[in-house]
Amino acid sequence: MFLRAYNFNAGPAAIPLPVLEKAQKELVNFNNSGMSVMELSHRSKEYEDVHNRANTLLRELLLIPDSYEVLFLQGGASLQFSMIPMNFLQQDKTAHFVMTGAWSEKALKEAKRFGETRILASSKEENYTHIPQGFSLEGIEDGAYLHITSNNTIFGTQWTDYPTSPIPLIADMSSDILCKEIDIEKFSLIYAGAQKNLGPSGVTVVIAKKEFLETATDDAPTILKYSTHVDSQSLYNTPPTFSIYMLSLVLEWVKEQGGVKAIQKMNEEKAGYIYSAIEQSNKFYKAHATEDSRSLMNITFTLPNEELTKKFLTEAKERNFIGLAGHRSVGGCRASTYNAVPKEACEALAAFMKEFQENNQ
Amino acid sequence: MFLRAYNFNAGPAAIPLPVLEKAQKELVNFNNSGMSVMELSHRSKEYEDVHNRANTLLRELLLIPDSYEVLFLQGGASLQFSMIPMNFLQQDKTAHFVMTGAWSEKALKEAKRFGETRILASSKEENYTHIPQGFSLEGIEDGAYLHITSNNTIFGTQWTDYPTSPIPLIADMSSDILCKEIDIEKFSLIYAGAQKNLGPSGVTVVIAKKEFLETATDDAPTILKYSTHVDSQSLYNTPPTFSIYMLSLVLEWVKEQGGVKAIQKMNEEKAGYIYSAIEQSNKFYKAHATEDSRSLMNITFTLPNEELTKKFLTEAKERNFIGLAGHRSVGGCRASTYNAVPKEACEALAAFMKEFQENNQ
Repeated sequence: MFLRAYNFNAGPAAIPLPVLEKAQKELVNFNNSGMSVMELSHRSKEYEDVHNRANTLLRELLLIPDSYEVLFLQGGASLQFSMIPMNFLQQDKTAHFVMTGAWSEKALKEAKRFGETRILASSKEENYTHIPQGFSLEGIEDGAYLHITSNNTIFGTQWTDYPTSPIPLIADMSSDILCKEIDIEKFSLIYAGAQKNLGPSGVTVVIAKKEFLETATDDAPTILKYSTHVDSQSLYNTPPTFSIYMLSLVLEWVKEQGGVKAIQKMNEEKAGYIYSAIEQSNKFYKAHATEDSRSLMNITFTLPNEELTKKFLTEAKERNFIGLAGHRSVGGCRASTYNAVPKEACEALAAFMKEFQENNQ
Repeated sequence: MFLRAYNFNAGPAAIPLPVLEKAQKELVNFNNSGMSVMELSHRSKEYEDVHNRANTLLRELLLIPDSYEVLFLQGGASLQFSMIPMNFLQQDKTAHFVMTGAWSEKALKEAKRFGETRILASSKEENYTHIPQGFSLEGIEDGAYLHITSNNTIFGTQWTDYPTSPIPLIADMSSDILCKEIDIEKFSLIYAGAQKNLGPSGVTVVIAKKEFLETATDDAPTILKYSTHVDSQSLYNTPPTFSIYMLSLVLEWVKEQGGVKAIQKMNEEKAGYIYSAIEQSNKFYKAHATEDSRSLMNITFTLPNEELTKKFLTEAKERNFIGLAGHRSVGGCRASTYNAVPKEACEALAAFMKEFQENNQ
């Protein structure tokens, strides 16, 4: 036995222990093949089963209709920031953005290279403490697409009601995909790096409406066209086979937990412990995000001063809590409570927060 | 104990058993961190050590001078086919190609999108049975670069003497990097997907001369500029951390074997068994590649007819030999004898080939 860390990393992040144990067990000899899953040809029947299982499970868990493609790509959200405008933003068209943090900014920056862009709403002036509400979607009818970041890892905010967009809605769901039930049909394209809720880094999931994919330009490098990966079932070139295998195990685990609905309930409970500790602290801990925009996945909070923050982080580390330092643009602390972070870890953190407050107030 | 397959897959391919066993041992609890290596933040000290160890070991094993950068990217050779011309081929410039197989063709196709291209030599007419020799490098002085594919997985050919190019020499070494000693300084840029000699799929190694990197255009999407990855030590976005960890273990294993010189000796011996079986077969087995161009890594051969080929592959599979079917463009059989394929597997295959011949002649 070993002491498992309370892993609150922002990503790469916790992976369910049973998933790691299963991967460990079959690492050298997968399915009695005499090979590791890493050693299988990506054209073999054995690997094909893994690949298809990941696809099927994701479709099942997120209720993805047949009118959508599911792709497994490389390069993370950062490559999607360029692939999306390269495929869908013609020079005379405008891509609209709602700005909710650093990742929205990066997506916007790359889109500018390909066509016109317009900021529809932004909470930048308030250091991204909230998701903009009540902004108008009028006049965007001619736009190529509307881009949002569904959860903001750094600032700890998350969309609850997605806009009903008159143009294709695209969402970067890297840090909250599979954390709660969503209506896929509101979106034309969803993308997510795996390293928060889906598994290890190295694979990017894209869920896209077939009808929307058909509007892509054909004038792009082969590997950067979505159509290339659609036509080859994400096997145009060698995919990151082990990462996709891990993804399939994580998806199986989500199913075993009762699916996304059950995961959502657990996430609400988990985040609840920590938000309660903040609320009951009489402003010793202050949430960065406004109440209506609080993320289920990344809980950002500050302490009364730098010195206490430092002390909190040092003592937390001694008590086996990992990854609690906030991003420099917010300061303070951040607890990332992704799907794989167990309830016990969140309860333990809430208890530690109370204890620390009592000892240091 | 389990029966380990004789893995002759073309890639993803065999990984050294001690490497898999080490990865298995520490999969759930890396370095007593209470976390898997997959769960570490890519900004953590623990991961940084892994990342830097991979870099340092590769430099040490290939004698890479300080005037070169070593990068760990995503997207495989297929993304490099576009990134290279995007960065280094201006519209009024010409990229020169020596065509030695299907991968050269793909590299050429993508380069055409960005500037002028010229085929300097090709063995396509002979179904790529050999590496073109004695072609002239005259008149290419104004070219942007000269591109070669150092080893041709499908056709089983490999360069022995690289051209001394008056312009930057770029090589796709996906299927033979680290198989033999090379003079890095002949090249301005080397790239290689990991899934043959370096580890699992999902990470691409780029070795590039700093001086050459400085000639890149600044006009490309952020993630597709080499400078982005140079400036951030391959940590611009979340890297494929587990794949890089596996790479570091494979490199440690190469070092333990005695380095690249020792690996080369083993590879020559390993390939020797199989080429001997072909040569001594009195033309029952015929090598696809001409003798001067034979690959140390992929041994391609045909049998007298389709029926015997099928029978050979079926019986081989029953005898625990995996991945021996040839690519459809060559037919017949292919044994990929990458670094991690043990000598015993090659001896066993040679013995099986003799036995099969005796029983079927």
